[in-house]
Amino acid sequence: MSSYPAWFDADDDRTARAAWSRLTEPCDLVATRWVESCGAARTLGHLLSGGGPARGEPGSEHLARWTSRLSCLDPTRDLRTLQNTGGRLLVPGDPQWPSDLELLGERRPLCLWVNGAGDLGRAAEKGVCLVGARASTGYGERVARNLVVGCVERGYSIVSGAAYGIDGTAHRAALAVDGLTVGVLACGVDRVYPRGHEHLFSRIRESGCLVSEIPPGSAPTRWRFIRRNRLIAALGRVTVVVEAAWRSGTMITAREAAELGRPVGAVPGPVTSAASAGCHRLLRDGATCITDAAEVAEMLAPIGADLSDSPPAPAAEHDGLPCEDLRVLDAVPLRKPVALTALCRSAGLADKVVVASLGRLALRGLVHRDSAGWQRCGRDSARGAQH
Amino acid sequence: MSSYPAWFDADDDRTARAAWSRLTEPCDLVATRWVESCGAARTLGHLLSGGGPARGEPGSEHLARWTSRLSCLDPTRDLRTLQNTGGRLLVPGDPQWPSDLELLGERRPLCLWVNGAGDLGRAAEKGVCLVGARASTGYGERVARNLVVGCVERGYSIVSGAAYGIDGTAHRAALAVDGLTVGVLACGVDRVYPRGHEHLFSRIRESGCLVSEIPPGSAPTRWRFIRRNRLIAALGRVTVVVEAAWRSGTMITAREAAELGRPVGAVPGPVTSAASAGCHRLLRDGATCITDAAEVAEMLAPIGADLSDSPPAPAAEHDGLPCEDLRVLDAVPLRKPVALTALCRSAGLADKVVVASLGRLALRGLVHRDSAGWQRCGRDSARGAQH
Repeated sequence: MSSYPAWFDADDDRTARAAWSRLTEPCDLVATRWVESCGAARTLGHLLSGGGPARGEPGSEHLARWTSRLSCLDPTRDLRTLQNTGGRLLVPGDPQWPSDLELLGERRPLCLWVNGAGDLGRAAEKGVCLVGARASTGYGERVARNLVVGCVERGYSIVSGAAYGIDGTAHRAALAVDGLTVGVLACGVDRVYPRGHEHLFSRIRESGCLVSEIPPGSAPTRWRFIRRNRLIAALGRVTVVVEAAWRSGTMITAREAAELGRPVGAVPGPVTSAASAGCHRLLRDGATCITDAAEVAEMLAPIGADLSDSPPAPAAEHDGLPCEDLRVLDAVPLRKPVALTALCRSAGLADKVVVASLGRLALRGLVHRDSAGWQRCGRDSARGAQH
Repeated sequence: MSSYPAWFDADDDRTARAAWSRLTEPCDLVATRWVESCGAARTLGHLLSGGGPARGEPGSEHLARWTSRLSCLDPTRDLRTLQNTGGRLLVPGDPQWPSDLELLGERRPLCLWVNGAGDLGRAAEKGVCLVGARASTGYGERVARNLVVGCVERGYSIVSGAAYGIDGTAHRAALAVDGLTVGVLACGVDRVYPRGHEHLFSRIRESGCLVSEIPPGSAPTRWRFIRRNRLIAALGRVTVVVEAAWRSGTMITAREAAELGRPVGAVPGPVTSAASAGCHRLLRDGATCITDAAEVAEMLAPIGADLSDSPPAPAAEHDGLPCEDLRVLDAVPLRKPVALTALCRSAGLADKVVVASLGRLALRGLVHRDSAGWQRCGRDSARGAQH
């Protein structure tokens, strides 16, 4: 159709996802729902052709939000910009796409712009988020370094927000001991923010990677910083806060991790240090007190669990599941997919709990989702997914 | 009967309890059970008369344990010694007998030797146990002082173990602000242990009190120190540990408090400080993280009451903004006015939404419009609009 721009290809979902990431701001649930249910290229085509809202499609108030950015849209240029700097686009289903992003449910990113030699999927599988205050103290930085070194020695990768202070310290400490490290940005991965981290960014790219859901060239905004925190939390199996002010983005990351059902640790400090106030608040709210890397590892391998090898005996598929997961698994039918609402009802659990549970169950290959809803995996596929 | 010593009075349970406290070591469960069920004077009479074990009475192996101390027994002399130094004996049922000692069940003391002007019953009703390491740091002592002053201001009394370090600091801080303080000893209340606390002990006696289940003249032993900790824990409605080595008497006090169902708080410190290792261990085991006296009071308050000082959150200009407004505010430049169309594009929102947002932001004094377009207000005007 002549109304489509030259770059548009109705069969190219990858480029369409790149386009959608330019049209939307992070966590545009209406866009995500539409793209996930109808396909990225199809929905984009609909938007480009100026089609009005149809049954089951987003209303005009949503279309207006996205069309305000149509004029400057050129995803092939964005992709070229990325490739010129050695980057790549990841979309769901790609080998390096971190499966844990499914935990985010409707808040999962449409795509990820990635720059760096590291394998993002592998990094996320063994990811420890170590985040903290920009205004860190010498104490916090020293503790952060020790934790990072101990985590890397234990085979974990370090995920952080690439900011000044604890984040930067964590990335640097990981690089110093040849650890895999992932910087999650609130701007395009071709930009350097904060400016002073130019050298750090180029070092991260050499062995790890920089990641963002925001397309190249985009500046960071407050909104993007806030939403970025959920990606940090989802890309690590555990989140440890080293220093944090009472109210800060770090606290948001910790809250996001807790909401994803992830363990949250906090490093205590002097109660007289404002830089530790957020950590003490987290401890009061139930975070685990962390004083060394062994305690981080302990959060990842609860007593009784054996994460290193698959069980020698044919273990029951629900072995070691937390009780919510067991209840959710019980509620997911084997033959006929079921919608989330129905699942929440039959499990008798809050939807947030169910979503987090489903994510964990999906990771274990026990359930899967298609357009019709959630369903149990057959035993064969479950076994396949475990190895 | 001629076999009884002159001081024995078969109707005087009070003196008999004083005698039993000399015959037994703390937590002699068999003795306590016998005394509680048959009466202190009657059981003592049985023991003095050299009667063999009868049905339902302790076996000879127990009798032997107590009779080993019969020869030096003279409770009237002990009571006189106490009274000469201004002390008194408390037994269950006395007005000042702390009712919370019942929590100890069979481990409750047979009597308490008390020295000092303070009302022990009243002190225990509002008691906060503040305990910690003998080898305290300047940091721990500073925090202990602040906690004590805040607790006394809130009407609480301070219970501690009268040792060097945190205990002594707590007593002194309480005295300095005219607070009621109770020192629980592992030796007779007429003795001074540690020796260096002679002046502190005499100051405690002036307004508070020294308490022990061990009769006058008795030296402290390791066993008595260990058992003393349960009395500290029982005499306060909450136990707060300021600094503690990984294994220490302080940790025992915290464990005793937890076993009595009492809230336990621990003050965090640098993870690099061995003096805080015990506190961090307690935090990992579920103690409440304590950073100020308000948080101690919160542990004592009924669930739902929020006594802690609300966070001194420095309000940011964007606090409480709906998410669209935040995104629009992010998009409005500080220095150069921008047109509505450009604003819609950079915020990624429909023009209707942006216009409504701008209206709200303008009302809060955060943005303003001139002929060239929209622009952020300076910080001063923004602050003015908030208050």
